[in-house]
Amino acid sequence: MCTDAPALVEAIRSLAVRGAPLLGIAGAYGVALAAARGFDVPEAARSIEEARPTAVNLSVGVRRARAAHEAELARGGDPAAAAAAALAAARTLHRQDAEASARMAAHGLALLDELLPGGGHRILTHCNTGALVSGGEGTAFAVALGAHRVGRLRRLWVDETRPLLQGARLTAYEAARNGMAYTLLTDNAAGSLFAAGEVDAVLIGADRIAADGSVANKVGSYPLAVLARHHGVPFIVVAPLTTIDPDTLDGASIEVEQRPGFEVTEVVAPQAQITGPGGGIPVAPLGTQAYNPAFDVTPPELVTAIVTEEGAVTPVSGEALAGVCKRAREAAAG
Amino acid sequence: MCTDAPALVEAIRSLAVRGAPLLGIAGAYGVALAAARGFDVPEAARSIEEARPTAVNLSVGVRRARAAHEAELARGGDPAAAAAAALAAARTLHRQDAEASARMAAHGLALLDELLPGGGHRILTHCNTGALVSGGEGTAFAVALGAHRVGRLRRLWVDETRPLLQGARLTAYEAARNGMAYTLLTDNAAGSLFAAGEVDAVLIGADRIAADGSVANKVGSYPLAVLARHHGVPFIVVAPLTTIDPDTLDGASIEVEQRPGFEVTEVVAPQAQITGPGGGIPVAPLGTQAYNPAFDVTPPELVTAIVTEEGAVTPVSGEALAGVCKRAREAAAG
Repeated sequence: MCTDAPALVEAIRSLAVRGAPLLGIAGAYGVALAAARGFDVPEAARSIEEARPTAVNLSVGVRRARAAHEAELARGGDPAAAAAAALAAARTLHRQDAEASARMAAHGLALLDELLPGGGHRILTHCNTGALVSGGEGTAFAVALGAHRVGRLRRLWVDETRPLLQGARLTAYEAARNGMAYTLLTDNAAGSLFAAGEVDAVLIGADRIAADGSVANKVGSYPLAVLARHHGVPFIVVAPLTTIDPDTLDGASIEVEQRPGFEVTEVVAPQAQITGPGGGIPVAPLGTQAYNPAFDVTPPELVTAIVTEEGAVTPVSGEALAGVCKRAREAAAG
Repeated sequence: MCTDAPALVEAIRSLAVRGAPLLGIAGAYGVALAAARGFDVPEAARSIEEARPTAVNLSVGVRRARAAHEAELARGGDPAAAAAAALAAARTLHRQDAEASARMAAHGLALLDELLPGGGHRILTHCNTGALVSGGEGTAFAVALGAHRVGRLRRLWVDETRPLLQGARLTAYEAARNGMAYTLLTDNAAGSLFAAGEVDAVLIGADRIAADGSVANKVGSYPLAVLARHHGVPFIVVAPLTTIDPDTLDGASIEVEQRPGFEVTEVVAPQAQITGPGGGIPVAPLGTQAYNPAFDVTPPELVTAIVTEEGAVTPVSGEALAGVCKRAREAAAG
């Protein structure tokens, strides 16, 4: 439980709180919490925002709550009223995320039915994108769940998602809880599934989408995009509009977080007592250096569609993304 | 230690003894052992040969020792003489493998220097192909070691190789022991390295090469071949001629071993006391089904070259492979 901003920052850094949409919600509530407890709100906002560099939703959530807080102060509200305004902004974001999730699921399912007439979808997914990262039922996972509910999911292929095994630990749990037909695999076994014609579509989430449509998502997404292209399989990104960052021009401009090597050189097993320097069980020689980017970047030309709460963008281009964002802003304003 | 054939079969099944060339040597010594201890040699040969279906070298080793045993009996030798003949055949295979290893290393290094003039090679490898699987210094790893010894290896990128982490546990150890510049990565982080232009060549071994040049190797090899093609990076297979199986016509004819799901749903940690049904630490919900092929198959059109002890075959085709095998047979006969 996070009762102050530093505890939240630590929870975000250690990935106890993770997943793009949930980071946004948590960031907004974190600012509201700092305000309610009388901490320096700009400082708390900065430290929460900097806890992880790649997921843009975290910034969006923090900034919305902070803007509400500042606006209330500017119009002469006292600190309690400003804190209430920040909390209201966080709650609004939370509710909007749940609504966006439901709409993405509907748009995603419609797209699947269009791309893959006849149903019986065999969907490959990576990392964890369900209710555990969302105010609602998630992003990519929500689409698969929607297909399951209407009897059109034949199989959910779940990448284990090294190094932290979000697929094995979290997505498998969500699939099992929902009674979905799912099978777990090591990330590198996906190639065999594609080669055997066992994958009808890849569905993933996103941590940041650049203005040109480049998609930063959990490391291992890009190899799936290349495999999907090689095998002519649709590669679909499901993400709320808050994930699109107009200030990040292209894929090369996306800052990719590098995480500690011990996530690779050690296996986390909370049940076990024996631990290496990183707190896990060592699986590589002591002193082994590891390359451990948390994300990779998939260029827009490998993305079949980006499904948002405002519908599917396909083909993916900077113009098309700017268009959907503009229409959403106009709808919100009007 | 394996003092009888059933113990050897168990050691092979559990992967205590693993790696294509070493399986061949172990298979031959296993037959010699059965003969020396007075067991039924054909039965022992069959059970060893069937311990793992994909690595053709295992069959080759078993059959050579068994043929030597039978030939000695046929020419009137007593059981002790036949056992000695089997042991001599195993020793010959062992010595030939060591010689083949040195020659593959030289041919592979020459090919690298041709494909990548200027040196400073950054080589990505998968699984474990060094001295731990060979009578000599291995296959793909021996080439990287050769480059290291002449100062032309800039970096060895070591795929951890899920599920059994042969890269993290074994290749990292061999690289460290030889003082090579190496970095460990999760298998799915290789895509980021390719995208960043950090991979000059992929070097892997093989468990079976079909007559058409299709390469069965550790699962995760095929995705690397697709990535290498997408990025215009050479994908090089290093394997002795015994790995080429003229009786397997094409990739579709290669039997791919499916291994138990608990290799994926549990993490092996001999140091830890807590274990799941498979003897490891559970990382997925109980009852999770896993897809766990031990190997995948890369079609010849994605393979830049196959480096054997008789030189590099490039481009890879059934005709070219048959040619190198024929020349080798003629050289051995002449």
